[in-house]
Parts: sequence; structure tokens; C-alpha cells
Amino acid sequence: MDVKQYMQTVGRQAREASRAIARADTNQKNRALAAIAAAIRRDAAKLLEANARDMAHARASGYDAALLDRLALTEKTVAGMAEGLEQIAALPDPVGEIDGLKFRPSGIQVGKMRVPLGVVGIIYEARPNVTADAAGLCLKSGNAAILRGGSEALHSNQAVAACVREGLAAAGLPDTVVQVVETTDRAAVGELITMKDYVDVIVPRGGKGLIERITGEARVPVIKHLHGNCHVYVDDRADPDKALKIVENAKTQRYGTCNTAESLLVARGIAQAVLPQIGAMLADRGVEMRGSAEALAILNAASVAPNKLVAATEADWHEEYLGPIIAVKIVEGLDEAIAHINVHGSQHTDAIVTEDYTRARRFLREVDSASVVVNASTRFADGFEYGLGAEIGISTDKIHARGPVGLEGLTSQKWVVLGDGHVRA
Amino acid sequence: MDVKQYMQTVGRQAREASRAIARADTNQKNRALAAIAAAIRRDAAKLLEANARDMAHARASGYDAALLDRLALTEKTVAGMAEGLEQIAALPDPVGEIDGLKFRPSGIQVGKMRVPLGVVGIIYEARPNVTADAAGLCLKSGNAAILRGGSEALHSNQAVAACVREGLAAAGLPDTVVQVVETTDRAAVGELITMKDYVDVIVPRGGKGLIERITGEARVPVIKHLHGNCHVYVDDRADPDKALKIVENAKTQRYGTCNTAESLLVARGIAQAVLPQIGAMLADRGVEMRGSAEALAILNAASVAPNKLVAATEADWHEEYLGPIIAVKIVEGLDEAIAHINVHGSQHTDAIVTEDYTRARRFLREVDSASVVVNASTRFADGFEYGLGAEIGISTDKIHARGPVGLEGLTSQKWVVLGDGHVRA
Repeated sequence: MDVKQYMQTVGRQAREASRAIARADTNQKNRALAAIAAAIRRDAAKLLEANARDMAHARASGYDAALLDRLALTEKTVAGMAEGLEQIAALPDPVGEIDGLKFRPSGIQVGKMRVPLGVVGIIYEARPNVTADAAGLCLKSGNAAILRGGSEALHSNQAVAACVREGLAAAGLPDTVVQVVETTDRAAVGELITMKDYVDVIVPRGGKGLIERITGEARVPVIKHLHGNCHVYVDDRADPDKALKIVENAKTQRYGTCNTAESLLVARGIAQAVLPQIGAMLADRGVEMRGSAEALAILNAASVAPNKLVAATEADWHEEYLGPIIAVKIVEGLDEAIAHINVHGSQHTDAIVTEDYTRARRFLREVDSASVVVNASTRFADGFEYGLGAEIGISTDKIHARGPVGLEGLTSQKWVVLGDGHVRA
Repeated sequence: MDVKQYMQTVGRQAREASRAIARADTNQKNRALAAIAAAIRRDAAKLLEANARDMAHARASGYDAALLDRLALTEKTVAGMAEGLEQIAALPDPVGEIDGLKFRPSGIQVGKMRVPLGVVGIIYEARPNVTADAAGLCLKSGNAAILRGGSEALHSNQAVAACVREGLAAAGLPDTVVQVVETTDRAAVGELITMKDYVDVIVPRGGKGLIERITGEARVPVIKHLHGNCHVYVDDRADPDKALKIVENAKTQRYGTCNTAESLLVARGIAQAVLPQIGAMLADRGVEMRGSAEALAILNAASVAPNKLVAATEADWHEEYLGPIIAVKIVEGLDEAIAHINVHGSQHTDAIVTEDYTRARRFLREVDSASVVVNASTRFADGFEYGLGAEIGISTDKIHARGPVGLEGLTSQKWVVLGDGHVRA
């Protein structure tokens, strides 16, 4: 197979299909989503069979437990895919919405219309459910999609793709609106991220290595986040109970997610009062604390489990542990906390715990992250929690969409000008 | 001079200054804008003197008349710079605006806050007034700016830069909020467009060659338009008087602007009725028509100035003439017009002339351009005409800002989450 030629064909087909899906009305898109969901439900056994082949191959290849876990489909996850598509069908259609149509002194009326981006390329690793999710979000937002899943999930993804094609056709849409790349050749990715004529944006989902590689080589805009080093700053005017609850939730509710807290900053003025209790809670949950000397002194003096205390190095302030470890630092106050977060953070999600109005406002304004949070857990940074209905990914960049990216992030706005024979003076 | 090291220093200083200007309140930014305007007015003679040196050098170097025209400052253009800054001061400050703060079922309140992008790099050619304009727009939108003007305008730009620094300092802001690159070494551009740690977005302003080079080499997001091949489509349900007025204005009001019409499409059903009069008007204005065979047959039959009629080649459908030439094609109707524009256009600005409601709606929805226009001239596609107050450039891309980019296009939105000890279930 000539991969370049194959991908160029896929790209050209996607560009053509993007015009059809951009024109499709809400009902037609929702009919397609419902038909895909129905096909997935009906073919559940086929999907599980295809997945079993991928799992057998992955086990034989010695992949680790985490990958096998992401790769595995169950009856429940298959049903979840279908439900996810039905939820997307129930979301409002962003396409065609016209905002702020105003008359100008020249007599023309000017506003903005929300329109699809065109062709979205999605590159992901083992999870086969991303195939259904991403197809649904692109379809609803009026975009054509080119999906490139991990080679481990090839059979699973192709089985989902068959359902997607069937649903598109049932709604009278070209089945090239969603194309799943059929080769596992890595050159296909290189082609996908550089086909500027055919692809409008790339959304990579996966580990840091994948995303770094794609960002480095892409010639098409990329919506991505590299990592999440989220902070909780406990201000000296914090309510200690809220601080304890929020640190517990932000760190320990789930360890592997990008909105999990990886760094705890505590104001010097309240550290003696709150850190021992927070440290005991963390130790109790099995969380190792990588502390600054001052933090360790307080924790040691309070006899917090010494086997959970480790001296932090400079690298710890930058780390995304994705596990039961947290960096802990004492800071003088708000200024030092903001400076620390802006220098060491990942511009993902950062929280302050404080009862002080002015400090809360300053934190919101001055911390340069995709999500800034007052008195709540960083774990809320998520498309569902924010009311987007679903998310295609999270962006830590500032251009275009920032934070959780839902349907609206897969659209852009063009200008609409209405006149009655108006010309420029 | 070690250009790399110099640019890294400029970048680091810009990143630091970006935090100060992001925090600055509206009054402080407006005071700086007023102080810069005052310094420019006071130093008008100095600016003209510096410009005279650039002009003498440019003449001696044999630059063409168009470049000399763009480079030249006059008392009027200097006063215009100062007025432009005062107009920017009068615009609403987009920074800090919070949109759509809503309670979610979890109890948290979620909205979006408009924030500066950070550091904006602007690369432009001869026009020294861009230095003042771009500095003003970046400052008001809370961004630090690195400006890299053409080497022809070095002395003029440095003279403007001195006024900018003085105004920043007068308002108590770091004078590194706006830095004008002091070397004419082209390696500085290569450095600027790849310093991902220090620069958030690049806005190139200039000819197609400059923009293609920058887009090809940049590792930082670019807001740009490559060219403007704007269309006017005269539908068979057009009002002939409006069609004539709009084609005249779109093509002949100014030849060198990117929103000037370069292609005229006429529906077959109305061509005999309107094209002779439109052709006569264009010939009268000295505009050459590059016509399809069918268009030429109609124009010849009507005895429109034969010396202004040339057979079009395929290349003409793609061309941005920036002069008194227009491509003319007869199309069957709306479908062919939309397809032609989407394939041959530049996604800049395209207009339909029609009295038909459904066709107007379809044109607005289906033409994939930054501005879509009904019954008005393409020449309206401009930040001032759209009510943005000013523009830093026009984007024909779909990611982030599209069409004329004003203050809002120099900002992004971050998520704001407000809670009262809320944690995720």
C-alpha cells in the first residue's frame, strides 16, 4: 500500500464529505447519531469479538496491564458508546447560530455565524470507545473526521467504524463523513498531520510522547494538552475544612486523570494549622508527599507517617505524577503562589482555597491557566462537569479553544454581512 | 551581535512584561495610550526626520514607488497614528469580561473569562504606522508585543518606539511591554517565530512572500491571510441596479486591498441582461476583463470595449490581481457559484447579489469564507466597518479569530470555576 497516496485519497474524500455534513440539518445529523447507536447495540457481540482478537494480540505482544485495561471492551462499555452517541444527539446543534447581528453606521448589518471547522483529524491510542465518541462529536458539529486509532485496537476500531458508516448511510449522508484509517503504518500519522489542504485541525489524545511527536511535526493546527500539573493553593485565609476536603478530592479521587492535583501549596501563615491534618489524610490514602524542607519539618513535627515523606527536588515542582504522590511547598502567600503556578504549572487547572474576596479575584485574573478555580476541586475541569455535554479533549493552549473542548470548540465563527445594495463610501 | 541570544532576551523580557500588562487595569492602559499619542504629536518633527533618512536610503537602494509610498510619513499620517491610539483608548477593554457564569447541577458556578494571549509577535514590512497601531492594540488587549518592522523603516520605527516606551513608563508600566526589534538581521525573524516559550502568536502583515515564508517556518501559531480572491456572484434573481453598484464598488473603489473583488460570477439566466452594462462600467473605469468564452461572447455582442477583453485561463480563477483586472465567468446558478468559490476562492470575503431569500440563506451558510455577504460590497470586510474599532490583521484561517481581527482576537477565554468547598462526586 502506498500510504501517502492512500492518505491523500482519505483527505480528499474528507474534504468533499465536509461540505455535505456542513450543509446537513440538525435532524439529519441526529438521525445518523441514533442509527450509529442502534448499529452498535445490535452489533455488540461482533464488537466484543473483534475486541477479543485485539486483546489476544496485545497479550501475546506483552503489552502492560494499563494498556490492556484501556483496550478492553465490555458489554457495559459498548452500551456506554451507544448512550454517549444518544447524548450527543440530544445536545443543541451549534452550527448556523448567528450572534450579535447589528446595524452599522454604513447601513450594513454585521454578525457572526458559527460554522464547522471542516475536517478534524483525531489521533488516539488504545481506547476503542474514542472512535464512537469522536465520530459523534465531529458529526454533530458538522465536521468530517479522519480517525487514526492505535494499531493495538485495529479490529475493534474497524468494527465500530462499520457501525458508523451504516448509520451515516441510513441518514442519507456520505459514509466518508467519518473515515477510520485502515493502515497501522505510522507514516499515515505523518501524512495526516501535514495535509494542510485536507485537514483543518488535529486533536491528539494519548500519552505525552504521542502528543509531543505530533506537535513537533504537525503543519496543521493542533488542539492539545501536554500534561496536567494542577495545583491547589491553600491560602492563609482558607477555611481549613474546605481545604482538607478539596485537597482530598483533587488528589485522591482519581490518580490517573489530567485534572488531578499534583502540587499542593500552603501559605506559611496557616501551614502549622492545616498541613498536619492534610498530611495525615494523604498518608492515610497512601499518598507520598514530596515536600520542601519547611513542609517536611511541619509534617515531621506532627508525626505524620514518616515513610510517606520524601524531600522534594526542583523536578518535583514540574511533575505530573499520575499516581499517589504529591509535591508540597510552603509559600509566603498569594504572590508567591501565583508566581510558582505560572512558572511551574502546565496551564491546565489550578485552584485556590480562600475566604478572602480580593485574593480570590486576583487568583482568577492572574493565574494563566485554562481553568482557574476558587474553593472547589480541580477534578471539575471536564466537559461534562462544565456543561459541554461531552468533550473531544482538553486544551492547554491559548489559541482557539481552551480547557475542555466540546462541540463549540469544533466550530469557528465567520462574519455575515447583510445589505440592500450597500457600497463602501 | 548574537541574534539568537538577543532575541531570547527580548522574548524573556516580553514574557515577564506580559504578566504586568495582563494585570494592568483599563485606566492604566488608557493612560499609556494617551501618553504615547502625546509623545508622537510632540515628536512629529523627529519622526519625520527619521523617516526622511529611511526614505533617502530607500530611494538610493532603488526601491519601487509602491514601497516608497508605504514607507513615507507625512504630518497627516503622524497625526493619524496619534489619533489611532486615542481611538484604541476609547474602545471597551475586553480583558476580564466574564461570560455565561452559570450554576451546574454539582453546585459549582462555571463561566469564561476573557484574558490576553500573552506575547504577540508582529512582523511587517515598510509601513511605520503599523508600529504605533500594533503597539496600541496589543497594549489595550493586555498583551506584550514584539514588533519586527521592515529594515527599510528602521529609523522611523525606532523613533515611534521611543514614544511608545516613554508612554508606557509615564503610565507606570514596564517599557518592555512593547519591544521593537533593533536588528535588521533576518535571522531575528526566524528566532521570533520559533520561540514557543516566549511568543504565543505571530501576526505577519505584508506581501504573500513574507507570509508564506513565516507560515512555513513558524512553530508558534500564526494569524494570517495569504491573499484575497474575493468574488461577487450576480444571481439570476439579482436586482440589476444593486449588482452594478456592488460590482463597481467591490472592484474599483480601491485596487490594492485584500477585500477588493477579483472574480465576477454571473448566472446564465441574467448574464445577457446585466453583463453588458457591468462590462461597460468596468471598461469605463479602465478595468480589464479576463472572461470565459461565454462571458466574452456576451460582452463582444454588446460591443463592450474589445481592448479590455481577454480570454481567461484556469489561472485567472485563482488570481489576486491587486489591480484593474477582473476575472469574469458565467455559471449556471447558485450551486455552481458556491462550488466555484469554495474551490477557487481564498476563504476571505465573497458576496452574492440576489433578491431570493432561500438562495441568500444558502450562500451565507455554504460559502466557506471568513466573510459572507449578501447585497453589499466585499469592501466592507474591515475591522472599522465591522465595528471592531481597529484591526491587527485579517485571518483567512478557521482556528481562533477569523476575518478582521480586533482587540477580541488578541484575547482568549479561560474557564472560571467558583465553589464553596465543592468536590467532585
